[in-house]
Amino acid sequence: MRDPMETAACVAVGSELLGEQRVDTNSLKVTRTVGRYGVRVVEKRVIGDDEEAIARAIGELAERVDLVVVTGGLGPTADDVTREALARALGVELVDDPEVEGWILERYAEFGRTMPDACRSMAKVLPGGRTLRNPRGTAPGVLVEHRGTLIVLLPGVPWEMEAMLERYLEPVLAERNAGRRRLARTLVLSGVIESEVESRIGGLYRRFGRENITILASMGTVRLILSTTGRPGEAGARLDEMEAAFREVLGDDLAGVDVSGIEEVILQLLRGRDESLAVAESCTGGLVAKRLTGVPGASEVLAGGVVSYSNEIKESLLGVPHELLVEHGAVSPEVARAMAEGVRRRCATGWGLGITGIAGPGGGTETKPVGLVHWAVAGPCGVVARQRVFPGTRETIRGWSANAAMDLLRRCIAGIVSP
Amino acid sequence: MRDPMETAACVAVGSELLGEQRVDTNSLKVTRTVGRYGVRVVEKRVIGDDEEAIARAIGELAERVDLVVVTGGLGPTADDVTREALARALGVELVDDPEVEGWILERYAEFGRTMPDACRSMAKVLPGGRTLRNPRGTAPGVLVEHRGTLIVLLPGVPWEMEAMLERYLEPVLAERNAGRRRLARTLVLSGVIESEVESRIGGLYRRFGRENITILASMGTVRLILSTTGRPGEAGARLDEMEAAFREVLGDDLAGVDVSGIEEVILQLLRGRDESLAVAESCTGGLVAKRLTGVPGASEVLAGGVVSYSNEIKESLLGVPHELLVEHGAVSPEVARAMAEGVRRRCATGWGLGITGIAGPGGGTETKPVGLVHWAVAGPCGVVARQRVFPGTRETIRGWSANAAMDLLRRCIAGIVSP
Repeated sequence: MRDPMETAACVAVGSELLGEQRVDTNSLKVTRTVGRYGVRVVEKRVIGDDEEAIARAIGELAERVDLVVVTGGLGPTADDVTREALARALGVELVDDPEVEGWILERYAEFGRTMPDACRSMAKVLPGGRTLRNPRGTAPGVLVEHRGTLIVLLPGVPWEMEAMLERYLEPVLAERNAGRRRLARTLVLSGVIESEVESRIGGLYRRFGRENITILASMGTVRLILSTTGRPGEAGARLDEMEAAFREVLGDDLAGVDVSGIEEVILQLLRGRDESLAVAESCTGGLVAKRLTGVPGASEVLAGGVVSYSNEIKESLLGVPHELLVEHGAVSPEVARAMAEGVRRRCATGWGLGITGIAGPGGGTETKPVGLVHWAVAGPCGVVARQRVFPGTRETIRGWSANAAMDLLRRCIAGIVSP
Repeated sequence: MRDPMETAACVAVGSELLGEQRVDTNSLKVTRTVGRYGVRVVEKRVIGDDEEAIARAIGELAERVDLVVVTGGLGPTADDVTREALARALGVELVDDPEVEGWILERYAEFGRTMPDACRSMAKVLPGGRTLRNPRGTAPGVLVEHRGTLIVLLPGVPWEMEAMLERYLEPVLAERNAGRRRLARTLVLSGVIESEVESRIGGLYRRFGRENITILASMGTVRLILSTTGRPGEAGARLDEMEAAFREVLGDDLAGVDVSGIEEVILQLLRGRDESLAVAESCTGGLVAKRLTGVPGASEVLAGGVVSYSNEIKESLLGVPHELLVEHGAVSPEVARAMAEGVRRRCATGWGLGITGIAGPGGGTETKPVGLVHWAVAGPCGVVARQRVFPGTRETIRGWSANAAMDLLRRCIAGIVSP
């Protein structure tokens, strides 16, 4: 029996990935897929459309890891040279393959078009390698074993790459790493900061191993990714044990497990209680509504919302009393409360959320600085309000505000915080 | 005089950058900065916290490029080993430096804290190298010349990395590549697709060189990045010439130059005309409001908006007639028009935008499939409506919808499309 694969490297090919705008993200998908079979990515590279450079990268990496996954540069244009680069790295010559040309011809025929001559370059195959038919496009991939290292070439288009990863690489991994699985579970926490969580889970790092726990924090949301490696049944039991231990330590700060975010938790809570929600946003300007409506099925519990940027709209659409705005100003706990109550009443929902603040960069004063945000939740039993001065840019202040407001909302709906 | 630097490589150090969630983005900032001096990034790598692997990467890259920028792994913890790796690559030993330790002690004193012992590791310096004081944190950087290649180590925290890039690397680049500048300008197009633009600018690729023109497309927005390299004055004049030639070919599809996006163009148009806007969103659920309010100063022209997810809110907050909803359904040109007119009237603005559609994954029917979206703009002279069936997921359908609706809005405000 062959040894299981332990390590992998990703190479993303394409000069556009070396510019000022784009980063390679295909490697995340590759990391996730190979990770499920206990294979760890130890290096990533991005290389331009340069045959010699690609050949060198493949050669260097093949000596160090068990699996090299190369994405991109398999198309028909002159700057697609990954297939040639692999041949060069292995010291062989590509040969024309009529069967593979047939696949490409078929693809074009399906769309009622004739194959451009340039596409013939995609029908060249690697002697000793396996040519991988592309179920979602034309460019074929390649899979070859070279001195104990598996080398896989996949197209750079994510939609095509993902399908081929699943169809061709996963079966090989499942066979080579039979009985070796890495399982992961994501705990989503809200209303806490990273350092607070870190100090609470110190003992769990020791108990379960630091390498099995990843902590990711972003503007008031913390994600803990728990993982285990082992035989399928064992790994699952171990993960359950980890989750239980973390639940005990995290308490009410744990919003959900394997959810996309706190917005999904809120929608689940509402759905479970057959209740409804409307949101009134000033400084977040639609960010909370956008995040909630990004979850499929949001329309079942979210009636809608109001982006009340101007005071006139706070009065006309939300019924915030004019005197309140004059007396306390738009950024005040009183107005946050009135917004939450107003949107709840006007939209006839069980719950209302109101957010008002100064996102900057302008608009701050000595008593009301940039970053000052008030938020309030109105529910069946009353209203509860909170405030903070958030740090950073317009974007981060809006991000922190949205997360903080949604956290209060989730705690109110779940009965953790009561008005 | 030394030769100008031509090529660079970026190395991002950190095991967290090899996981399933995060990608290195520091290299984008490095690419932008060195690019201004005509230096081209030809390779990027991501390496874990492994001294031998980092040393090998530095060694390999230093033989191939003129500049190697390494970010991350300079902190005080045991897995921060980038400084040691560089010493290993160059075959030297780090030495303690009391002056550098003084910098770090000062930093801690500023915050009224005492320096942990572990921080002493950051006060080790590279013989022959220059130690770079960190103006925004504690971890110092390193700059060293090795056999004609400049090697720079910077902290991984973006906020610190950026300041040090500017303070220490830019002066070196400005001197070494004196008189060599790369200037870039971004043209933002909307309401067009990539292939359409490609075919129109074919002649300009030939005239100005394909390597100076980058095209990036995303859901109905196309960005063209024009760049030139040369002496400062010449490069600027050449860029003006390019822009003029592109303007001629692109016509009204060009929304703006060097703007963050179409939302910024809309706000500029409104501001220039002293007009105001309100938006009514169904399927986009706040995405348009969120994007518009993300631009600083949006509150001057954007009154606000309504996220009318339910039919009740379309009636109560926007005044969409009940019969219209019953007769044509919520996803119809009639309702899109009524939403645009309703939000304009209720918010008392010059312009109103309405969007209604089926973002999926559920909710589609034979006559109204997932992806069908209607949008309308109501302005001083009437209403204009459009529709499309957009492809893809809930996220991409929402993204295409927002861009298409904002494109119609910009064309109406600019007088390109009239009701």
